[in-house]
Amino acid sequence: MERILCAEALKGNKSTVEVAGWVHRVRNLGGIVFIILRDCSGFIQLVSDAEFNLNLESVIRARGMLSDSARAPGGREIVLKEYEVLSEAEPNLPVAVNQDPGNLGLETILENRMISIRNPKLLSIFRLQANCIRAFGDFFRDEGFTEIKTSKIISGGSEGGTNLFPMDYFGKTAYLAQSPQLYKQAMVASGLERVFEIGHAYRAEKHETPRHINEYVSLDIEMGFIDSEEPLIEIERSFIAYLFETIGRKNQSDLEVWNATLPSPDTCARIPIITYEEARDIVKAEIGAKVIEINPRAERILCDWANRERGIPMVFINEFPRRKRPFYTYPTGQKTMSFDLLFRGLEITTGGRRINDYSMLKEALAKFGMAESELGSYIDIFRYGCPPHGGFAIGLERITQKILNLANVKEATLFPRDRKRISP
Amino acid sequence: MERILCAEALKGNKSTVEVAGWVHRVRNLGGIVFIILRDCSGFIQLVSDAEFNLNLESVIRARGMLSDSARAPGGREIVLKEYEVLSEAEPNLPVAVNQDPGNLGLETILENRMISIRNPKLLSIFRLQANCIRAFGDFFRDEGFTEIKTSKIISGGSEGGTNLFPMDYFGKTAYLAQSPQLYKQAMVASGLERVFEIGHAYRAEKHETPRHINEYVSLDIEMGFIDSEEPLIEIERSFIAYLFETIGRKNQSDLEVWNATLPSPDTCARIPIITYEEARDIVKAEIGAKVIEINPRAERILCDWANRERGIPMVFINEFPRRKRPFYTYPTGQKTMSFDLLFRGLEITTGGRRINDYSMLKEALAKFGMAESELGSYIDIFRYGCPPHGGFAIGLERITQKILNLANVKEATLFPRDRKRISP
Repeated sequence: MERILCAEALKGNKSTVEVAGWVHRVRNLGGIVFIILRDCSGFIQLVSDAEFNLNLESVIRARGMLSDSARAPGGREIVLKEYEVLSEAEPNLPVAVNQDPGNLGLETILENRMISIRNPKLLSIFRLQANCIRAFGDFFRDEGFTEIKTSKIISGGSEGGTNLFPMDYFGKTAYLAQSPQLYKQAMVASGLERVFEIGHAYRAEKHETPRHINEYVSLDIEMGFIDSEEPLIEIERSFIAYLFETIGRKNQSDLEVWNATLPSPDTCARIPIITYEEARDIVKAEIGAKVIEINPRAERILCDWANRERGIPMVFINEFPRRKRPFYTYPTGQKTMSFDLLFRGLEITTGGRRINDYSMLKEALAKFGMAESELGSYIDIFRYGCPPHGGFAIGLERITQKILNLANVKEATLFPRDRKRISP
Repeated sequence: MERILCAEALKGNKSTVEVAGWVHRVRNLGGIVFIILRDCSGFIQLVSDAEFNLNLESVIRARGMLSDSARAPGGREIVLKEYEVLSEAEPNLPVAVNQDPGNLGLETILENRMISIRNPKLLSIFRLQANCIRAFGDFFRDEGFTEIKTSKIISGGSEGGTNLFPMDYFGKTAYLAQSPQLYKQAMVASGLERVFEIGHAYRAEKHETPRHINEYVSLDIEMGFIDSEEPLIEIERSFIAYLFETIGRKNQSDLEVWNATLPSPDTCARIPIITYEEARDIVKAEIGAKVIEINPRAERILCDWANRERGIPMVFINEFPRRKRPFYTYPTGQKTMSFDLLFRGLEITTGGRRINDYSMLKEALAKFGMAESELGSYIDIFRYGCPPHGGFAIGLERITQKILNLANVKEATLFPRDRKRISP
């Protein structure tokens, strides 16, 4: 007899079925045992009047007759005929799997990640995240982008050399890449013109905040033959609309589990674009005090403002001051052709046009106190013909966090790395 | 006027067009200049009777009248009206872009990767590779697999602790992950049941061979509720057929550039499955001498044998001896439920069923001289209910290499890392 999934059993019309999965819950009501079995598709109730002595999380294969039952989840249950234990769990789980994870602290969840991840509510975060990755690839491939995979082991820093993790590379010191920045620029200049990469990025930042992790998945794009950051903003706007539409359709039940709602895809057309100066003025007007920089509190105020004004809690901020951006950002006087995208109070994207002219790049390096030699053959991209170009990166964990309104980005990371955590 | 791609200009019917791209080749024939312009879609010839003084690889935007021309590539050319320089290249490219890269050594190609990658023949490798990544994701998603992203910074080794790259993690020593092995097992046990990951893997091996790189992209899958390696072999067989079909359709011109042909997808049904012992016997019969292990030479002999016998140069080898496999491999006496897939003389996959029983795992650890504590909370997966499961990994660069018959796996790596190379 072939195993079917719980979801199939609930809607199929077979009278005898075989299911397999984890013992999620057991209720013993004086001679009758109700077992909730969990598999990748959901849950089904098994009923038995025989003894049933398995611990929670044991994995079983069970056969029985389907029967309608008004009180069973999904309106059906299986009257257990026989079962076989595939893997017996020890008693006393390190962390509860079948309870609301809201009762557990984040520290407990992460310390016991190998088991806590079985909690259906926690797991739902990553079902949704998988579709964010997929939507990113599908959207940009359709827009003519080619996927690339570039090295994460580099000889120097692309953003100025701070916050790098050093590693021992056969007796030499190498570093983990902070971003695929230089490589994606090389691949625009290679003639591919439009590229994307889905890969890890590493920041040795000592921050201990709900918005920082030291290893994250960066959804990167870079495109050629653009003259400003505007085409980047417009393509990201279209992507966000596509993402919300896709996730809303494919992950409706995951959104419901977290009581989360997404902005309607058509409101993405209304996401405002404001300059850095305008952003400071808006925040100043809201809090009635001078604003020095767009800090996390200001980011929340700006998204609230956008939600009030445009009906979507997102805002593009462009014309960032040059001193706030890396050396390769295309300058316009003291400003730059760069932007951030904020969503529900959090920066989820940084991007912009890049310098593509060799002499302009040399000036920029001098201005930032960097030597040309630090960049190695990266410089060759610009010496030998490079079209105007730009790009951006979306933090996968951050956008997942904000879609579900999670309090901490680590909740949206399967195995997060922070200053103190390198396991599990 | 809006830029169109070279490929569009060649087949469109607009009389005046604007194109943009790199100056790929210039021929000056006494008063008439022929310029081959290159963009992401291909090439088009520009003709001018005015002076044209740009170096190769300069990036221009050009406007002119389309005209039929029997001698121009694609049968059409643009009679140049005006052009604008977007980025002027210096003379004397570090490496030729418009010549057969067969004239350059691999070392020269990799040392000058930022420019050599512009060579259309070299770039075609990565257009094809992008579709290998896509095919992998598309196929396994259709089979019910969920994409995961797991940490590459780990506290210990998953394969026994050798060949690890150490790194400094805020004053502690951490390591780069050799594979997502333990994490993908955790995610099968999480209830997702079927997962895949596309991510970097790191091996600090000192090998200097045409088949080794120290950082590679691993196409990993893991699936639950299987009793042996057979379902893994069958799903990989189906994937390979799908991959060949997809690449044959989408990358026909890239295959032609390399004069490469793919096995017909329907021959994948005939890929033989032989045991490790049978493999040794076949090699022994071919070379007339005792065979101690399946080394690279033996791998070539076995693929030649399969090609002769079954019409496809691929072979699955299963029942590997236990001493040749990591501790977590499911044993059957002195053998294991594990397999390799060889393609054109190269191992491109290792996989197998894993131990899912806690007491069996404890025995295995003892046999391999490992302490339970080395694995940290990995052990919890098995203590608290884990279905029988298994998986495999395909090396992205290796399968790309073999599809195109490239001599060295580094040719199929954008920015390869070997013992001596950490840049560009």
